[in-house]
Amino acid sequence: MSQQQSKVALIIGAGDGNGAAIARRFARGGYEVCAVRRNGEKLQSLVDDVRAEGGRIHAFGCDARKEEQVVELIENIETNIGAIDVMVFNIGANVPCSFLSETSRKFIKIWEMACFSAFLTAREAALRMDTRGRGSIIFTGATASTRGASGFASFASAKSALRTMAQSMARELGPKNIHVAHVVIDGPVDTDFIREFMPKQYAERMPLDGILKPDHIAENYWNLHHQPRDAWTFELDLRPYMENW
Amino acid sequence: MSQQQSKVALIIGAGDGNGAAIARRFARGGYEVCAVRRNGEKLQSLVDDVRAEGGRIHAFGCDARKEEQVVELIENIETNIGAIDVMVFNIGANVPCSFLSETSRKFIKIWEMACFSAFLTAREAALRMDTRGRGSIIFTGATASTRGASGFASFASAKSALRTMAQSMARELGPKNIHVAHVVIDGPVDTDFIREFMPKQYAERMPLDGILKPDHIAENYWNLHHQPRDAWTFELDLRPYMENW
Amino acid sequence: MSQQQSKVALIIGAGDGNGAAIARRFARGGYEVCAVRRNGEKLQSLVDDVRAEGGRIHAFGCDARKEEQVVELIENIETNIGAIDVMVFNIGANVPCSFLSETSRKFIKIWEMACFSAFLTAREAALRMDTRGRGSIIFTGATASTRGASGFASFASAKSALRTMAQSMARELGPKNIHVAHVVIDGPVDTDFIREFMPKQYAERMPLDGILKPDHIAENYWNLHHQPRDAWTFELDLRPYMENW
Amino acid sequence: MSQQQSKVALIIGAGDGNGAAIARRFARGGYEVCAVRRNGEKLQSLVDDVRAEGGRIHAFGCDARKEEQVVELIENIETNIGAIDVMVFNIGANVPCSFLSETSRKFIKIWEMACFSAFLTAREAALRMDTRGRGSIIFTGATASTRGASGFASFASAKSALRTMAQSMARELGPKNIHVAHVVIDGPVDTDFIREFMPKQYAERMPLDGILKPDHIAENYWNLHHQPRDAWTFELDLRPYMENW
Repeated sequence: MSQQQSKVALIIGAGDGNGAAIARRFARGGYEVCAVRRNGEKLQSLVDDVRAEGGRIHAFGCDARKEEQVVELIENIETNIGAIDVMVFNIGANVPCSFLSETSRKFIKIWEMACFSAFLTAREAALRMDTRGRGSIIFTGATASTRGASGFASFASAKSALRTMAQSMARELGPKNIHVAHVVIDGPVDTDFIREFMPKQYAERMPLDGILKPDHIAENYWNLHHQPRDAWTFELDLRPYMENW
Repeated sequence: MSQQQSKVALIIGAGDGNGAAIARRFARGGYEVCAVRRNGEKLQSLVDDVRAEGGRIHAFGCDARKEEQVVELIENIETNIGAIDVMVFNIGANVPCSFLSETSRKFIKIWEMACFSAFLTAREAALRMDTRGRGSIIFTGATASTRGASGFASFASAKSALRTMAQSMARELGPKNIHVAHVVIDGPVDTDFIREFMPKQYAERMPLDGILKPDHIAENYWNLHHQPRDAWTFELDLRPYMENW
Repeated sequence: MSQQQSKVALIIGAGDGNGAAIARRFARGGYEVCAVRRNGEKLQSLVDDVRAEGGRIHAFGCDARKEEQVVELIENIETNIGAIDVMVFNIGANVPCSFLSETSRKFIKIWEMACFSAFLTAREAALRMDTRGRGSIIFTGATASTRGASGFASFASAKSALRTMAQSMARELGPKNIHVAHVVIDGPVDTDFIREFMPKQYAERMPLDGILKPDHIAENYWNLHHQPRDAWTFELDLRPYMENW
Repeated sequence: MSQQQSKVALIIGAGDGNGAAIARRFARGGYEVCAVRRNGEKLQSLVDDVRAEGGRIHAFGCDARKEEQVVELIENIETNIGAIDVMVFNIGANVPCSFLSETSRKFIKIWEMACFSAFLTAREAALRMDTRGRGSIIFTGATASTRGASGFASFASAKSALRTMAQSMARELGPKNIHVAHVVIDGPVDTDFIREFMPKQYAERMPLDGILKPDHIAENYWNLHHQPRDAWTFELDLRPYMENW
């Protein structure tokens, strides 16, 4: 396959366990992976892992909240690597805070990370997909995407903004053969964060399969992208069997 | 594998295109399929198809609204065929009617078909699964499962009764390692019914992949049953890319 | 006002605190109240209360799950008392149970009480309202109407069946000038039941206004019925300010 | 009543038909109304109307997207007029657009108007209410608050961001005796906008009560603010009886 014919999987927010697992999954499936996080240099271990397995991957640093950076990123990938066949948006921003003590700076930042950067990257990707009449865009959601819990006003606001944007996109872009999907992850995920900050919960639940494994999450993204177009899923949820929900 | 060790897939409502496709999918995957519809004799062509492919299948006639028949069916399967590893409930009852002219007889019948028979079969299967500490129960939902449209009071009432029952089950049985899921099918499915009664819509949409293919639906049931338990889906929706929703 | 011109408020399920409060509210507003419960004799204290305040009220015994009794009740009221201007359906059936140990008898009974009797009474009332081109039908919902919690499969199934039926009705009957509404009561209500069986919760929360007062609930039913038709509510929720939801 | 003891109703977004009607309603109920829109001078006719009826009203110009302006506004009102007893947030931003051709500037602006300005004003008001242990905050929602339709990605994203923020607030602030509510307006409202730009729909539906009247909407805000705290509503919807929803 020449480089021009490569199918590209673009992972926005490849910096956490999920994003890395999704990148690995698409690389294993033969995709040319473009992994993006704010600081591209931090992607080196992911790049090494994928290449050690024989996969193809490129690391990009990009602040997805900055329109010019996003436009340039997509242009660069489409010109120099290949057509984006699937884009995954996986930037999280879960910072709980009492509504009364929330700052405007943080409220804006959470929205910019969880929603506005999704708008910018999805629009740029969708414009290319629209030209070709094909592609998938998959967003990572959370429990807060459909429920505003106490102490989570900013995060729930931003995540539901993302979800409803995705739903509008699915309705508008579906008939253009662009598959838009939203994955609601409802439970703790096996990441460095939880290992470090919730060690007790981790130690108790991990041996019992009570913590979502990124590789298992990633399999669902792979399946979503490969659904035949007569039977597309917009939304699915994922949680451990033992989760109290 | 001896007969006692067979993994059984029980399909309640194997009489339509969906149910038959799900039966074929699990047979291809090595399951001993138990296919059930009210009149078991009508399952002969499904049985022939599966066996022609080398699969194992048993046909049962059972009115799933009758407790004694359901109890006997499950007892019979568990004793003589094997442990039910996955049960799919796929009985539909989509009969639109104005609320004002609906009869109590039809209102009851729709609920008995769409919800009460699900209760009976799921309870009997879940009791066995609970003993073994494993199993999956997957319900087929519809657009009406979450939305009460004008002219669909009876059907929407019954389908949402099924969905919320499934949600309660998922929360109660998940921690017991029983995976309960609900698939919302939102769009026309390629069945004899639509070919016959909506020929124009069929002719227009089928060549464009605008009609859900049962084999594609079935793949999602297969995937749901095989999700690792740290990342279970309760609900996913399926619709053609061109659906207006 | 002659008896023929009376505006009738029909309360199905007037036996609990809520139903009685709704009956009193409409009586105070000048309605001729028809209060119904299975055993009509148990309505005597409500009848005495309303009459002591100068209100007009009639007590009826009717098993609302029996079609012939419902048909006769509505016929009787319309012929002998007056045109039903508003019907409130307030029969509850909150009996929690593990899914695994639920009996078919109880599963059916809960549905018959919470949903089927609503179908019968609402259809009979709506047929009369349709002839006159006016009327309101208001259903009492619960937390379980939109959420299937663990241990509540039967109740949640029945309550969501009621809610979606109401939603279909609202969409079908709204354009016929019949206002259908659904009130989600999410929290403990000041009834004999809670005083007796949850005395600790009652003692703690009642002085803090942490328990819904039936008179306050009833005011919302009154308001719903009197909304101008350019601005009708289908659904509102009610809960104490201190409720954890 | 001295000025210091006045109960203040603050209306953010008093510039459209709804906001003006809500202002008038609270003025009629004896509240000292503080009406706010970006250009305060445009509030003169509302001020004249309220004063002609004997009501008390103050007009403020404030760009609610600017934190310093919002902080100063609330400080000014609390210091010079009185304690804010109820705040209504009524800024709309319904500008449909294809997702593919949406600009980042407009996407941001719609969110700033519909959500961020709500965050700023609600936080400043809630901080004062929290000190006093009482108050209400009511947000105006739309159909798009719960549904992302094709062509409405930006608006639906922003309105659902607002709704989920409100839901988080309700859960956090309810126990502090601050009533947070969200009104979903689902249908055309009688405003200059619809008279001018949808004259045919207006002419057809207005005589049939098919258009929401701001005074009727306003009555619901009044009722919400006056609900006793044992029975608070978080959300209600409003639509004309003839609406197709």
